[in-house]
Amino acid sequence: MNSKIKWLRDKIERMNMQGMIVSNPINIQYLIGIEAEGILLLTRKENIYITDGRYLEQVQSVLTIEDEIIVTNISDVSEYDYDNFFMFCENVGFEENYVTYAKYKEYKQKYRINNLVETENIIEKGRMVKDEQEIQNIKKACEITDNCFNYIKEYIKKGMTEKQIASEIESFFIQNGAEGLAFETIVASGENSSKPHAIPTNRKIQSGDIVIIDFGCKYNGYCSDMTRTIFIDKVEETAKVIYDLVNKNQSLILSQLREGANTRNLSKMVENDFKLHGYDLIHGLGHAVGLQIHEEPFISSNRMETILKENMVITNEPGIYLAGKFGIRIEDTVLITKNECITLTNSGKDYIVIED
Amino acid sequence: MNSKIKWLRDKIERMNMQGMIVSNPINIQYLIGIEAEGILLLTRKENIYITDGRYLEQVQSVLTIEDEIIVTNISDVSEYDYDNFFMFCENVGFEENYVTYAKYKEYKQKYRINNLVETENIIEKGRMVKDEQEIQNIKKACEITDNCFNYIKEYIKKGMTEKQIASEIESFFIQNGAEGLAFETIVASGENSSKPHAIPTNRKIQSGDIVIIDFGCKYNGYCSDMTRTIFIDKVEETAKVIYDLVNKNQSLILSQLREGANTRNLSKMVENDFKLHGYDLIHGLGHAVGLQIHEEPFISSNRMETILKENMVITNEPGIYLAGKFGIRIEDTVLITKNECITLTNSGKDYIVIED
Repeated sequence: MNSKIKWLRDKIERMNMQGMIVSNPINIQYLIGIEAEGILLLTRKENIYITDGRYLEQVQSVLTIEDEIIVTNISDVSEYDYDNFFMFCENVGFEENYVTYAKYKEYKQKYRINNLVETENIIEKGRMVKDEQEIQNIKKACEITDNCFNYIKEYIKKGMTEKQIASEIESFFIQNGAEGLAFETIVASGENSSKPHAIPTNRKIQSGDIVIIDFGCKYNGYCSDMTRTIFIDKVEETAKVIYDLVNKNQSLILSQLREGANTRNLSKMVENDFKLHGYDLIHGLGHAVGLQIHEEPFISSNRMETILKENMVITNEPGIYLAGKFGIRIEDTVLITKNECITLTNSGKDYIVIED
Repeated sequence: MNSKIKWLRDKIERMNMQGMIVSNPINIQYLIGIEAEGILLLTRKENIYITDGRYLEQVQSVLTIEDEIIVTNISDVSEYDYDNFFMFCENVGFEENYVTYAKYKEYKQKYRINNLVETENIIEKGRMVKDEQEIQNIKKACEITDNCFNYIKEYIKKGMTEKQIASEIESFFIQNGAEGLAFETIVASGENSSKPHAIPTNRKIQSGDIVIIDFGCKYNGYCSDMTRTIFIDKVEETAKVIYDLVNKNQSLILSQLREGANTRNLSKMVENDFKLHGYDLIHGLGHAVGLQIHEEPFISSNRMETILKENMVITNEPGIYLAGKFGIRIEDTVLITKNECITLTNSGKDYIVIED
């Protein structure tokens, strides 16, 4: 049987559930590698994926006999089938943080379930620690991202618009083995760089600009995430000081990231150092990366405290943003190990000055 | 009091509810004109909008004393307040198709509500029929879209990429009074035009191409939606026949759209005529437009049947898609009136041939 399904079956058994309805498409992708519209049922006897005609061919081509998943066209599922899927199940789990109240009621009625019980994000919690294959996918996505940065450094010229650069990044990703973007690329120049979530505009890159490039791609469904801040022609003294402060804190956090590190303490560390120098950490310090670009755990003093574990993959992205002036952010995607972290994005972090 | 809140209060009173929690941000935008993160409570005595520090200033600047809405910072809401919001309310409504099961439980507990009851999309149903102000906003969005098409017809030259044209459309919108895109612009050329939901690529426009341009903008939060199919240099005979068939059906539907028309019958009409000529209607014939680009009702034979009403705003977008070859789609946004429909997008539908 598919190993992740096996893992989930063990988990729910220990929670005294005899079945589960998995509805969240990202969780389904995680468990059985399928990106489609459908629902996954773990019943006493079988694993059943119900989808529709549009996806049947694609789904059948991905699954093998070893997966032990029965694929069914929703139009072939009878009322009798629905009645029987969870027969003799005392408790059936569902995803209470994804399923709407209306769907919950529909499930209860359609599947004739007496105890439809909450599963407290068990799958999301499992997704926090990556397996070897997932790590390889993220590594590959990070490698393509590093290559893209090498290329784009040479590509950028004064007079180009932020949008043009963002578009070239996307083209590079597609032409170099990525499936697409992990998220909308940020190319934020001049005063736009002071907005952490800037959207590329038609502003033209000019001499003296600071440009934040925050970008990532997907490989086999898995994301990468990297930010570099570059300078056009020169690095002003005021920007240098802030760049150094951000860079120092980014390095500091890299040295602290390992199994056992406390996410809230990591964030506090940067917050305190920024405050000492008169700045605020207005944006989260990091987040996990996987099938989604933003996953649990988040590294922030406003979020739930998490103790990092081996094989989590997270970002480390301190930034300082001076409204209306400029911003500096440096970000890597890293793999947590027992005693240290391994940076998966490896582009240089010395002042990157583009002259042409 | 804000007239939409008043309308909603009447509605819920007739459903024997003494209060309601509105969580869906689009519904909140519809009711009180605010785009922010927050929750709207209709209690026995007051209308309360709870948001956080990031949005307070913006929210206060939009609301006036006539709205009779109390704005509160979530950090100032005490447990005592939560206990009291719905005191003496027998039934309190919530949005069962938006709220997750976990949130439903949280609401019940936090607000100490005995009967948290389903509201069966009452707000969404209200949104189906537009008021004068909403119609004006959609008209304006459609006018900007027509102007954009006039501009872009002149802009398009052979050798440009689909992405470049899509980007120019977006720039035009922003520079001409729109807030932004109603949805991601489709510019699909050559064989790409055979995919109804194509994403703009780096494919270059060339002689003989058929290009589908499906685009719309937002004005005061309200969307427009229009598609025109254009030809580069020449119109091949095979394309002409299909264009004429699509155009004829689009006109036919325009002549049928009025209060009382049945959405399923409209769709069947086009389906049958396409079938007679050997083609299929593989994509929905239309949908309502409002704060969201796709709203109820949908005009399709697979969807719920709806009888159109005066002041609904819908699209009419028949299309024929020949996989791997090309596609033709023609779409207008129209306003339903008692005896006819008024097209809000008015760009010409004769063969549009671009030569340069």
